[in-house]
Amino acid sequence: MIECMKKRRTIRQYTEQEIPESLLNELLEIASRASNTGNMQLYSVVVTRDKAGKEKLAPAHFNQPMITSAPVVLTFCADANRFVKWAEQRKAQAGFDNLQMFIAATIDAMLFAEAFAEAAEERGLGLCYLGTTAYNADQIIRILSLPKLVVPIVTITLGYPAEPLPAQSERLPIEAIRHTEQYVDYTPASIDAFYKEKEELPVNQEFVRINHKETLAQVFTDLRYTKENNEHFSDVLLNVLKEQGFLK
Amino acid sequence: MIECMKKRRTIRQYTEQEIPESLLNELLEIASRASNTGNMQLYSVVVTRDKAGKEKLAPAHFNQPMITSAPVVLTFCADANRFVKWAEQRKAQAGFDNLQMFIAATIDAMLFAEAFAEAAEERGLGLCYLGTTAYNADQIIRILSLPKLVVPIVTITLGYPAEPLPAQSERLPIEAIRHTEQYVDYTPASIDAFYKEKEELPVNQEFVRINHKETLAQVFTDLRYTKENNEHFSDVLLNVLKEQGFLK
Repeated sequence: MIECMKKRRTIRQYTEQEIPESLLNELLEIASRASNTGNMQLYSVVVTRDKAGKEKLAPAHFNQPMITSAPVVLTFCADANRFVKWAEQRKAQAGFDNLQMFIAATIDAMLFAEAFAEAAEERGLGLCYLGTTAYNADQIIRILSLPKLVVPIVTITLGYPAEPLPAQSERLPIEAIRHTEQYVDYTPASIDAFYKEKEELPVNQEFVRINHKETLAQVFTDLRYTKENNEHFSDVLLNVLKEQGFLK
Repeated sequence: MIECMKKRRTIRQYTEQEIPESLLNELLEIASRASNTGNMQLYSVVVTRDKAGKEKLAPAHFNQPMITSAPVVLTFCADANRFVKWAEQRKAQAGFDNLQMFIAATIDAMLFAEAFAEAAEERGLGLCYLGTTAYNADQIIRILSLPKLVVPIVTITLGYPAEPLPAQSERLPIEAIRHTEQYVDYTPASIDAFYKEKEELPVNQEFVRINHKETLAQVFTDLRYTKENNEHFSDVLLNVLKEQGFLK
């Protein structure tokens, strides 16, 4: 499994091969062994296989083609609803309608999703995480009929990898990520050193060129994750947290 | 690895055996292969090995003994600071001081943490996740000198498992977690069915008895995750998000 992890890459193109229900459920069951907050399992997953369902979800993910081309789409949700319904039915007063419990449920959903991803890849499946879920959470809530205290956090598109496999993408050196005993803030020199390899990669230099930018960082800030979009989708998310009952 | 995942349990007691730096760095490097938002890697980890450092962290984790008894403590952080520093140094204007980017960074930190956990367990290590990190994020920020745009999300205590290993804790049946095509809300009957096994477990019945409660749910809502605490720590977290620059 360590070897599988070292070679891991995001898979955005899938073969026609279907994923049996038995395999999907086995993977979800394995994933449920992941740690979670107080064993409350504050998460749910919605599995989409129907073509019509995928087509409804696609616009919420900016029509990224993986949604409709993957045999299975999984929407992982922070979910305090099930726990609170249980509590109410058992003479218990749950005060879970707040930010801290939203974060706990988000943590639970992410550990579950990543354990699922690791198990799926170990079994030969390929997948792509979509971060668009939290951007258009309002639309996804409507499409999947998510009740109060449920917020979609991340989506995985899943299938058997089509050949040829994509190249593995680069990562920062581990010294850029790891701090020891204290967080040592980055200096101009350490930033230069840590980002050197990334900036010198031909694929990234090409990325700068075709987008007519001066630096790689500008591709991210001017095109992919603009301040304007980030702020707009933050407002959407704030409203979602209020609507779903996690924020007053 | 799948077999390792199926058998997984949280390990809270560790042997004296140290974890070599080379192994720790290898595991962090493997974990960095996990998916992340736009390959921006919006996370960091602070490694604590020094006894004095663990003793400083312990109160923020309500003095749970794993903090001081584990050879290594890892604090996983949502981190937009490194990316923004890089952007500023490359004539790029990053608008990452908002809620959506905090969630993106939290997702990144959790995928990194869980991939780390899976790799560590595969190599024979045992670990415990501590959710107290987000509760007392303000204290941890001070102790670890975390700058703006960095928020600690979750902590892992890590070591070689001491014998005897604890029993594996129960999980809800996968049908309780999984929805198909649409979220089907829980009914009194489905809640009863999904929680039956958990409620009937001798260890959980004992838990109710020694806490002088009527139901298992009350143990959670009256003792472990009270409305009062949840709301208090939500206020702390809201302030942390403002202080760290993720919320206006």
